[in-house]
Amino acid sequence: MTDYMQFLSATGRQLTESAIRRMGTVVARPGDMVSFAPGYPDASLFPWGDLREISTRLLDGHDESALQYGPTRGYPPLLESALHVLEGRGIRASLDQLIITTGSQQGIDLIARVLVSPGDVVLVELPTFTGAIAAFKNMQADVVGVKQEPDGISLEHLDEVWQQQKRLGKTIKLLYLVPNFQNPTGVLLSLPKRARLLEWAERRDTLIVEDDPYGQLYFEDMAKEEDTRPLRADDRNGRVLYLNTVSKMLAPGFRVGWMVAPEVLIERFDTAKQSADLTSGILDQRIVHEALRQGVADELAPKLRAWYRHKREVMEQALRTHLGSKLTWATPKGGFFIWATLLGSDTDTEWLERALTHGVVFVVGSAFHVDGTGHNTVRLSFSAPSPERIKEGVRRLAAAVQDQPTPTGPPSTLARDR
Amino acid sequence: MTDYMQFLSATGRQLTESAIRRMGTVVARPGDMVSFAPGYPDASLFPWGDLREISTRLLDGHDESALQYGPTRGYPPLLESALHVLEGRGIRASLDQLIITTGSQQGIDLIARVLVSPGDVVLVELPTFTGAIAAFKNMQADVVGVKQEPDGISLEHLDEVWQQQKRLGKTIKLLYLVPNFQNPTGVLLSLPKRARLLEWAERRDTLIVEDDPYGQLYFEDMAKEEDTRPLRADDRNGRVLYLNTVSKMLAPGFRVGWMVAPEVLIERFDTAKQSADLTSGILDQRIVHEALRQGVADELAPKLRAWYRHKREVMEQALRTHLGSKLTWATPKGGFFIWATLLGSDTDTEWLERALTHGVVFVVGSAFHVDGTGHNTVRLSFSAPSPERIKEGVRRLAAAVQDQPTPTGPPSTLARDR
Repeated sequence: MTDYMQFLSATGRQLTESAIRRMGTVVARPGDMVSFAPGYPDASLFPWGDLREISTRLLDGHDESALQYGPTRGYPPLLESALHVLEGRGIRASLDQLIITTGSQQGIDLIARVLVSPGDVVLVELPTFTGAIAAFKNMQADVVGVKQEPDGISLEHLDEVWQQQKRLGKTIKLLYLVPNFQNPTGVLLSLPKRARLLEWAERRDTLIVEDDPYGQLYFEDMAKEEDTRPLRADDRNGRVLYLNTVSKMLAPGFRVGWMVAPEVLIERFDTAKQSADLTSGILDQRIVHEALRQGVADELAPKLRAWYRHKREVMEQALRTHLGSKLTWATPKGGFFIWATLLGSDTDTEWLERALTHGVVFVVGSAFHVDGTGHNTVRLSFSAPSPERIKEGVRRLAAAVQDQPTPTGPPSTLARDR
Repeated sequence: MTDYMQFLSATGRQLTESAIRRMGTVVARPGDMVSFAPGYPDASLFPWGDLREISTRLLDGHDESALQYGPTRGYPPLLESALHVLEGRGIRASLDQLIITTGSQQGIDLIARVLVSPGDVVLVELPTFTGAIAAFKNMQADVVGVKQEPDGISLEHLDEVWQQQKRLGKTIKLLYLVPNFQNPTGVLLSLPKRARLLEWAERRDTLIVEDDPYGQLYFEDMAKEEDTRPLRADDRNGRVLYLNTVSKMLAPGFRVGWMVAPEVLIERFDTAKQSADLTSGILDQRIVHEALRQGVADELAPKLRAWYRHKREVMEQALRTHLGSKLTWATPKGGFFIWATLLGSDTDTEWLERALTHGVVFVVGSAFHVDGTGHNTVRLSFSAPSPERIKEGVRRLAAAVQDQPTPTGPPSTLARDR
């Protein structure tokens, strides 16, 4: 027998799996499972008719480049339309500062590869997106968590952690964060904190990676478009690398995202992408470009906001009805997730195990924590299931809690107000 | 001004650019440039009608998963149809030994990340595919070249290099090679050598990465299907990691390839791919699956063989007519490339510079050599341009040679016979 372990690289030996991806495998199991696990968009809202028309026209053979190799940097007209989208978000960038990526995930991966050496510190929010944790850990980064408050990352704790790491002699490369309707907490970073974060990055000579998949999904009862203004829009010193994707606003199957960064870094991301996958899918890029150019995405956005807000309400109502004494959470102002704290004695993994036997799945909160905490938290995605399935899933969650021995303390009244 | 250089990782500081990708940029320049540079397939042969029908049906909304996220390992029905393609090439594998990649390039990149630590030796053919050189160098591999003979890699030199590197105390991880119509030389590895290579890998406890994009493009005047039998088909000891792609047989814009490898390694490639791009394009995978299932690819293959063989003949005829005393080459038995040696005093880069001013571009041979040699060689791709453009391009190449001071020696007669 060949011993394959001897052939593994340092990276290969300690690869980090994404907890969300693992849950994805659970969902794929046969049977009637309600999934609150992955942050999938609702496929019934994909603009099928428009996309079908666009694709049919692109494949009529009039333009042979539609299925050919293309530039690593991206399909040039898509780069132009991405600039237009960015302008709509307050971001002014040049073509030299832009690259198309195979989803935002590739953007994070390129950043990790080009910027992070083994042992370098990457600061992240506590909790944060598991795909980012995995990408940074796979480059053997030292991923260090910073606490969050109801209005986003704690600036005091951020600087405290920075100083601690400096005292340890560490090289701190960047802070990764999701300012808008964070994954997994749904938290919206306040505008004053955004301004102070930019000052902090300049003072501490650190880069900020701003991952913004949910920025356009604000719920109008609690947030306005202005509240989601990206840090990159006010970045005077070139401190922010900005990631965006069409996965939530059109469809994730296209694997099309883009990154805005200083030109000298974009050149290196381009070179790294050459050996990663040569180029992102060409047909995908062209369909996305046409959908942006024809206004399909702009027309869809308000419908997505209204529909996901409705689903949040359905989930909250069901949670209040069935689990009001067992869970507490803050109502998210946008995005895909309800981030809940367990009030009983259960841990997230114990509850998940029972939930699976009741036909419902979610992601354990501890998976999003790089410091080993979070075992009393869970992420419930309301984005993909239908309202009926959300209600059914919450009923199953409640049944899973009933299985547990009654907690000794009185039920919290806090949760009732949520 | 922010100093971005301080933020670069070890990888970021020494990224290797693919020479082919660089040439791709040249081709994209405006103007009437004939390109013999990138190994692009002929887009006029893409099965436009079939692909359009397939895509239109997939996007009619009846199956909402067509644009949703999907499993990292790949769209399950595509995995099944890839196994069927592999069977047709003599390769028996299980689903556990298979992963879909975002083009073959991602397969090479995943291998580099999971298997290669900085300083590890990767053996490659001299010359070899620049995309592989870049991916391995970006993991800081020590990429060491092994000579080729008219029937493929020199087994004597291979073992000599292996012993040299061992004496230096190096860890030798793998041998990367393209056995069928190699990129850039077009060489076909002989069947006896394939058998001996498998024995060598077992004896020397080394892995083989077999990259096979051109295997089905044999030209029937000089090669038969049996001559292209993959090493993986006779690999009894699990030494071979096999890479395949639809880029040459359907269209490269889809970015769909697959890799066969031992199960324990596939698990790690899967984890590495999670943080690289989560999943390959879903629509792309489904279109490709349908094209394979409906026999579109099988029906197309003989046409591709005949058409590329014709183009090879057109290019050879033009080269004999216009450059017979300046170049020598071996007729390729398949694939996309004529690999030519310059008989004059010109270097590859000098000739390229003049060629560019005459409106024709190719890739310099030195770019494919990891040992700094090859400055008297060039790679001419006949795959993409039309027969008329091939003739025009060769006329321009000849004009570029005329610019040069007449060489002092008599013209070689060798070149006439090729």
